Amino acid sequence: MRNHQHGGDIYSTPCRFDFSANLNPLGIPEAVKQAACEGVRLSANYPDVNCRALRRELARREGVSPEQIICGNGAAELIFLAVQAVKPKRALLASPGFAEYEQALETAGCEILYYPLREEQGFALKEDYLDWLDMEIDMAFLCNPNNPTGVRTERGLLEQIFGKCKRRDVCLVLDVCFMEFLDVPEESNFIGNLKENPQLFLLKAFTKTYAMAGLRLGYGICFDRDLLERMEKMRQPWSVSLPAQMAGLAALGEDAYVEQARKLIRKERAWLREQLRECGFHVYESEANFLFFGGTPGLAEKCREQGILIRDCANYRGLSEGYYRIAVRTHEENRELIRVLKMVR
Amino acid sequence: MRNHQHGGDIYSTPCRFDFSANLNPLGIPEAVKQAACEGVRLSANYPDVNCRALRRELARREGVSPEQIICGNGAAELIFLAVQAVKPKRALLASPGFAEYEQALETAGCEILYYPLREEQGFALKEDYLDWLDMEIDMAFLCNPNNPTGVRTERGLLEQIFGKCKRRDVCLVLDVCFMEFLDVPEESNFIGNLKENPQLFLLKAFTKTYAMAGLRLGYGICFDRDLLERMEKMRQPWSVSLPAQMAGLAALGEDAYVEQARKLIRKERAWLREQLRECGFHVYESEANFLFFGGTPGLAEKCREQGILIRDCANYRGLSEGYYRIAVRTHEENRELIRVLKMVR
Repeated sequence: MRNHQHGGDIYSTPCRFDFSANLNPLGIPEAVKQAACEGVRLSANYPDVNCRALRRELARREGVSPEQIICGNGAAELIFLAVQAVKPKRALLASPGFAEYEQALETAGCEILYYPLREEQGFALKEDYLDWLDMEIDMAFLCNPNNPTGVRTERGLLEQIFGKCKRRDVCLVLDVCFMEFLDVPEESNFIGNLKENPQLFLLKAFTKTYAMAGLRLGYGICFDRDLLERMEKMRQPWSVSLPAQMAGLAALGEDAYVEQARKLIRKERAWLREQLRECGFHVYESEANFLFFGGTPGLAEKCREQGILIRDCANYRGLSEGYYRIAVRTHEENRELIRVLKMVR
Repeated sequence: MRNHQHGGDIYSTPCRFDFSANLNPLGIPEAVKQAACEGVRLSANYPDVNCRALRRELARREGVSPEQIICGNGAAELIFLAVQAVKPKRALLASPGFAEYEQALETAGCEILYYPLREEQGFALKEDYLDWLDMEIDMAFLCNPNNPTGVRTERGLLEQIFGKCKRRDVCLVLDVCFMEFLDVPEESNFIGNLKENPQLFLLKAFTKTYAMAGLRLGYGICFDRDLLERMEKMRQPWSVSLPAQMAGLAALGEDAYVEQARKLIRKERAWLREQLRECGFHVYESEANFLFFGGTPGLAEKCREQGILIRDCANYRGLSEGYYRIAVRTHEENRELIRVLKMVR
C-alpha cells in the first residue's frame, strides 16, 4: 500500500473542509461536469489516442501548434514520462519542492542535486542557481510559483536560466500549474520563450485551475518534437480518458470562472495572510492560491481533530516540523479555518 | 502525432458501427454510468491513491487479499509498469499478439523473441512453447484467449508453463481480459494458481467486460508483493481517476449483465461464424467475444466506405494482408455487418 505523502487524502481522514489540496475554491464549473458526464456516456468507445480536439483547442489558445502539445493523465504522468524520455544521469531540483519530481528521478536511477531554497531568503530562488547548472546537469525541474511556498521567481532570472539550460543542454521542466492564480498570470507566461528554447518544457494542469483533480488532465508544451514523440512511445495509447478529454475541452470555455477565482483568491489570500499573522505564525510571500507558514508543531493534527485538513509540510525535503501549507478557499471556509486555528494553536 | 494501430479509432473515421474494438456489446451498464457521473461530481477531490474501496471489493470477489491487487489506468498502464519494474533483458511474446506488450518491451530496450503461432495449427499455442522458455527469458506475455485470434490455450498446458516459469524465474504476465466472454470462464480462471506461482501476474480489465473503454480501468493480481510495490513507485500516485474507481466498484455488482452478455455472445458468435463461412472466409476457432478470419485483401477499407469499422490485422507481427478481426455485437448490428460483407467481398 502506498504511503500517502501529499495533500488531499480525504479517504484516510474524512473531513469537513480540505485545505490540504490546492484547487480552485469555486469547484468544478457546471459545464465541465456536464461535459465529463457526456464523456462517461460515450465511454463504450476508446478515447482518441491523439487527444486531437483538445490539443487543437489548447494550441489555438496558447498560440502554438498542436504538434507542440502533449496531454497527460494529469500533469503528474508527464513528469514521469519526461524523466523516462530524457533519461538524465544527474538532475537538479529546488528544495523544498513537489515530491513527484524526486520520485520520478529516483525511479530512473538518476543522481539528484538539491538547490536549497533558504528560509532566511524567504525561500526565493536566487541567481546562484545558475552556478548549479554548471554541475553536469542533464535535467532540472522548477515550479513557478513554487509549491509548497507559493514564491514566484522573477521573469528576468528565469530567462537567464533558460539561456543557461540552452547552452548547457539541460532539459528544464517548468511547472506552471499554479500560474492562473497569480494576480498577473501573464508575467509568468513563458510560451513566447519556447521557440528560442527547445530545452524548455512547460507543464500545465487542469487539476488546479478548474478544480478537477479527480478527472486527471494535464499537458505539456515544448518545441522539441523528438522529446514529445519519445514520451508518447513510452506509454499506452489511451492514457487520457474520454471524460477528461471532454472536460478539458469544456474547461477552456470557462475564462470568466477563472477570472472570478483569481479575484476571490487575491482578496482571500490577503485576508488569510493577515489572520495567520494575527495568530502569531510566520507567513511567507506566496503569490499563489495557497499560503505557506511556520507555526507550532502538531498544528495539522489538531486541525484534523476539528475536521479540517491542512498540509503538514514536515515531510518536504529541506523543511522540518512546524511548516504548513493551506489552500485559499471561499471566505466562509477560510473563516472557519481561522476560527479553528485560533482555537488550537 | 501517434500512429493509431489499434481498433476503436472512431475519431479518424466516423462510422455507423464499430466492430474493430472488442467490447461488451450491451454497452456500459446504467448503474456504472451513474457511478462514474457521481465520480465526476466529486472530482474536485483527488482520487484515493490506494484505490482502497475498489481493491477491497475486488479482493473479496477474487478470493485474494487487497495487497495482492494493483489497479491501473486501464490494463494497458499495467503492461508498461510491469515491464519497467521487471526490467527484462530478454522477453518472449507469442505472435500474432497484442501490440502493447511489444511496445512496452521495446521502450525498455529489451530483446524480444517471438514464438510463432502457426496458421496451419489454427494459431494455437503448442507444447514446444515450453522449450522457448529455456532461452534465458526474464519475462513473457500470454493472452488467453488470445487477441486477435480468440484461441484459448488448454489449462493443462498453461499450468505446465506456470511451472516452468517458476523454475526458470520468468515473470509471466497472463492477460485474461477477454476471459469473461468464454462460455465457461472458470476454465480460464487461474487465481488458484497464484499462491504456488508468485512469478505469475494475472492481468484483467474492466474495459472489455463492462464496455467502459473510455473510462480506463484495469487491474493485476500477483502474489509477488515486491513486484507490485516497485510498480507503484514507478508511477504517479493518482493514476486511476475518481470516476473510474467509482465505475469499477459499481460494475462489480453487474453479474447478471455479464451473464446476459456471455449468452448473447455465445449465440451470436456461432451465427456470425456460420455467416462468415458462407461468405467464403476462413474463420478460426475463437472462443472469445470476437472472431478472426482470413478474407480478401481490402475488405476493411470497403467496409469503412459503408460506415462499418472492422479490424484489419495486417499490421500484426506474424500476419499479412487479408486477416481480419470483428467483435461479436448485437444481432441487429451483426446482421448489418454480414449484409455489408456479402455486398463488398
